[in-house]
Amino acid sequence: MTSLTDEIIDIAMRPADHVPDLPLDFAKLSLLDWMTCAIAGTGEPLAVKLRQLAASESGRPVASVLGGMRVPPRMAALVNGATSHSLDYDDTHFAHVGHLSVGIYPAALAIAEMQDASAEELVTSFLLGAESAIRVGMTLGREHYNHGFHQTATAGAFGATLAAGRLLGLNHSQTRHAIGLCATRASGLTSQFGSMGKPYNAGIAAANGVECSILASIGFTSADDGLMGHQGFVGTHLPGGSLAYKSDMAFDNYLFPDNKYKLHACCHGLHSMIEALQVARDVNGVSLDDINTFYLSTNPRWLAVCDIKQPRTGLEVKFSYNWLAGMTLRGDDTGDDRLFTDSIAGDAELKRFAERISVVGDADLTDLQTSGILSLTDGRTIPLWFDLTEPFTTEVLAEKLQRKSSTIIGEASASIWNLYHRFGQLGARDIAATLVAASTDLET
Amino acid sequence: MTSLTDEIIDIAMRPADHVPDLPLDFAKLSLLDWMTCAIAGTGEPLAVKLRQLAASESGRPVASVLGGMRVPPRMAALVNGATSHSLDYDDTHFAHVGHLSVGIYPAALAIAEMQDASAEELVTSFLLGAESAIRVGMTLGREHYNHGFHQTATAGAFGATLAAGRLLGLNHSQTRHAIGLCATRASGLTSQFGSMGKPYNAGIAAANGVECSILASIGFTSADDGLMGHQGFVGTHLPGGSLAYKSDMAFDNYLFPDNKYKLHACCHGLHSMIEALQVARDVNGVSLDDINTFYLSTNPRWLAVCDIKQPRTGLEVKFSYNWLAGMTLRGDDTGDDRLFTDSIAGDAELKRFAERISVVGDADLTDLQTSGILSLTDGRTIPLWFDLTEPFTTEVLAEKLQRKSSTIIGEASASIWNLYHRFGQLGARDIAATLVAASTDLET
Repeated sequence: MTSLTDEIIDIAMRPADHVPDLPLDFAKLSLLDWMTCAIAGTGEPLAVKLRQLAASESGRPVASVLGGMRVPPRMAALVNGATSHSLDYDDTHFAHVGHLSVGIYPAALAIAEMQDASAEELVTSFLLGAESAIRVGMTLGREHYNHGFHQTATAGAFGATLAAGRLLGLNHSQTRHAIGLCATRASGLTSQFGSMGKPYNAGIAAANGVECSILASIGFTSADDGLMGHQGFVGTHLPGGSLAYKSDMAFDNYLFPDNKYKLHACCHGLHSMIEALQVARDVNGVSLDDINTFYLSTNPRWLAVCDIKQPRTGLEVKFSYNWLAGMTLRGDDTGDDRLFTDSIAGDAELKRFAERISVVGDADLTDLQTSGILSLTDGRTIPLWFDLTEPFTTEVLAEKLQRKSSTIIGEASASIWNLYHRFGQLGARDIAATLVAASTDLET
Repeated sequence: MTSLTDEIIDIAMRPADHVPDLPLDFAKLSLLDWMTCAIAGTGEPLAVKLRQLAASESGRPVASVLGGMRVPPRMAALVNGATSHSLDYDDTHFAHVGHLSVGIYPAALAIAEMQDASAEELVTSFLLGAESAIRVGMTLGREHYNHGFHQTATAGAFGATLAAGRLLGLNHSQTRHAIGLCATRASGLTSQFGSMGKPYNAGIAAANGVECSILASIGFTSADDGLMGHQGFVGTHLPGGSLAYKSDMAFDNYLFPDNKYKLHACCHGLHSMIEALQVARDVNGVSLDDINTFYLSTNPRWLAVCDIKQPRTGLEVKFSYNWLAGMTLRGDDTGDDRLFTDSIAGDAELKRFAERISVVGDADLTDLQTSGILSLTDGRTIPLWFDLTEPFTTEVLAEKLQRKSSTIIGEASASIWNLYHRFGQLGARDIAATLVAASTDLET
């Protein structure tokens, strides 16, 4: 009988020349977006503390740490994973129910740098690890997440293990043991949200991936099917759930291109509204003063997440339809994290505009869709609609991500984006060196 | 409202001069028994592989590894935890539902050695960490274990975190954050039993304890109550269970003296029968040939665990009432792990004797009790009874553990047991040096 475990081993061991270009292109763009988020997070207090931990351990200098230091690969994965998730500005895969890049890229990069792999091998290993993690995340489903487990850390650890394992050249049996070890090692709770524990979860995923794959590479063994076997990871971490395949696993297809990128520095629940309002602003020429009322419909689950009516802090603004609607319509750069200060929570113009907004839940909308109606002071109405499900083309995405990068990390973004068209000639060590140089420049 | 979290912080921060001597004496004996198991496990393949991992990482040499090497404390805890659990010969705390020493002592020793703490401080920190872990294990209960979670790794990680945190001098708030970080870090599944994943679980507990306590010591923050808060560790890992205190938590008392030591190199379910038969053998002078029939009653749960009627391998012998009954009555040293070879599974005398034994389940017996009747060829009957619950005095325990130590590690045991009466003058570094010297001697 084939289990999910066999399927993800097959995915992770797929020959490189069987992997099509399109998902690889998305994975390359994800690398650059991950680098942007990671560089931007380098100065955060939790990142500084983790570098302090890394410096206190020291060790064989084979993998680079953001902010400049070389340490053993497990530690590099821990520090870089947590650092890159510290601003909550990284990508989301909704079917996986988590953030793929921050758990998997730090593990893959640490091993790729140690092994002197090519940049293409790094990206291919990431992609196949991510495709595997998506299937694990889908199997665990929203039930796992709603119970309090953080797929970014749990399913993510399996992706990190497989990506790192591929770069280490694990054979079929070693890969199976690596998955088994990860089954007993993986952890991470959503109740950490709002503390340093949340980004730590991403670091945990990456560090676990490195530890489990290296142990398997030197012959460490585990339960035969630690993921799907009796009382394996899924059986113990899927409350009341069934272990049967979900219908839409599609092992032969690539699901990574459904990955979503944060182009706005706020809760993902607000993004389809922002995109819809950007169209009204840029195409219909609507501005804040033209609007009489704004009726917004959204998936009901978001009402408990990001419908703070009167935010009191910059952090709360990131979870407020009212504020983001006004900011978008008056042309604020919602991609700029520095905009979300406590003072914008007290902005009088946004406070007045908020009184003209009604937000209602509509269970017919997915959590990536928004619909709405703008009623203008001149009597016109403009219907709004946006569905984040539709993927951008790689060209459009590249342009949007490059703009985001330039907004967040300024001049440092140029060195990152210069890599994009030179991938074929690059090694993972070039990627690591660029990352470190940009993060160190920003720090000093 | 006081939560378990507050209670275990209070336990872990208890002033040393409030801790009574008796539980400390048991904790000292546990240290020596742990050292015995650890030294005996040093040559196991998984221990060799973990030393290979440690050597490949290298790093600041502040904590000793079994077999001789100095590395950062997290790695020392990982290697020593797994190594000491590799023979499954370490202690068990039945209320905690797990093995305390192998998860907590490696973390405490690594930090105590780094901090140059006294041996008394090491033992006190272990004891208070263990008392905390026992309450976490009791709260999770057998439900957690039956669902597939391994308390040794999960509840054990909290004990390791608190023991290490005490040695690092964490204040109240830091201790709380350390527990919160452990809540998102702790993991370990029983489905790993029978593979290297089982001892790895003990290493995971110890390594997590070191990582979380060090992070808290440098200001890393976590969820406010990661253990007992909404969707905290207990809420997510206690299937269908209640978060209410169990009635017998007894925070002011010491539960560690209920800890049980393996004096026989086989499944714990067999131990009360062996003790009962040893009395019949040594007090009543009964030998194998005197016996006509042997009726044995045991807690029904053991029937699924250690009632292999015809073992085929040395490992299966460790789970066979039939074989251990015969071995005990003829005077085999059941404390000697080397006795459990495949050839003893084919022993003709034991095979013949097995036909005279009947094993039945009796739900009125606890899992630490045995009752039975020996019917002798001369017509006499001898009733048997043993309850492992009754603790040995520290004097009797010391004698039994020293004999075990000498059986397993031979001459190396002398250097370990020489420490017992000199604790007051010793530092943790003396303990570590003795451990390394004995394990290195045995290796060469």
